Amino acid sequence: MNGLDHVAILVSDLDAAVKLYRDTYGLHLDEIEEVPSEKVRVAIFGHGLGRIELVCPTDPESPLARRLRERGEGLHHVCLAVTDVRATMGQLAAAGAPLLDQVPRPGAGGSQVAFVHPKGSRGVLVELKQA
Amino acid sequence: MNGLDHVAILVSDLDAAVKLYRDTYGLHLDEIEEVPSEKVRVAIFGHGLGRIELVCPTDPESPLARRLRERGEGLHHVCLAVTDVRATMGQLAAAGAPLLDQVPRPGAGGSQVAFVHPKGSRGVLVELKQA
Repeated sequence: MNGLDHVAILVSDLDAAVKLYRDTYGLHLDEIEEVPSEKVRVAIFGHGLGRIELVCPTDPESPLARRLRERGEGLHHVCLAVTDVRATMGQLAAAGAPLLDQVPRPGAGGSQVAFVHPKGSRGVLVELKQA
Repeated sequence: MNGLDHVAILVSDLDAAVKLYRDTYGLHLDEIEEVPSEKVRVAIFGHGLGRIELVCPTDPESPLARRLRERGEGLHHVCLAVTDVRATMGQLAAAGAPLLDQVPRPGAGGSQVAFVHPKGSRGVLVELKQA
């Protein structure tokens, strides 16, 4: 079903951020995983739709690490679960929206994902995800 | 249950944003409501936890309208469902986190809400909500 898959929050100190979201906000920490291909460690709260993912760069030279230095911690993107990522990308392209991926690429758990530039999505970096 | 209640996205043109999220992204539009007390119109996608709320200022003099002019459309805040908003506020205050509300105020549907300054929540404006 289409919906909010997760919201991603960029953090500089994953352990401190996990403490805040787990111990103070009382959210359920599902798992912490290292994603070497993306050069990040991720803490996932909740499961199914509507998760919160805290994302912490592990390589100071990565684009996410640069963004963190330049703009600080904060909301980074939303990931939307869609039925047909290629069809959605086609609609966006037809409307002139800039896509950061021209074809879907493999995501976690066999999913297919593609990013839409904030300029093509009313100021929000959007990840499209087809299960 | 504690979790992500909704993520709020600030938009300048609610109708155009609704088209994008409903027709292109295929999300379920639950309702559009005017909230005169907050000087906004809101489009709510999904229901239960993990909603997306598109928020559009109706008064050009409101703080949200100013922010829209200064920083453009984009991700605005996350709202977290918590069991006891006063207890969470107490923990935050004890940790020195700046709160934008010193006591909870009435939210939609009989809820109690309070906002935490991004400086107190690792760069993210957080709304706490007790059902």
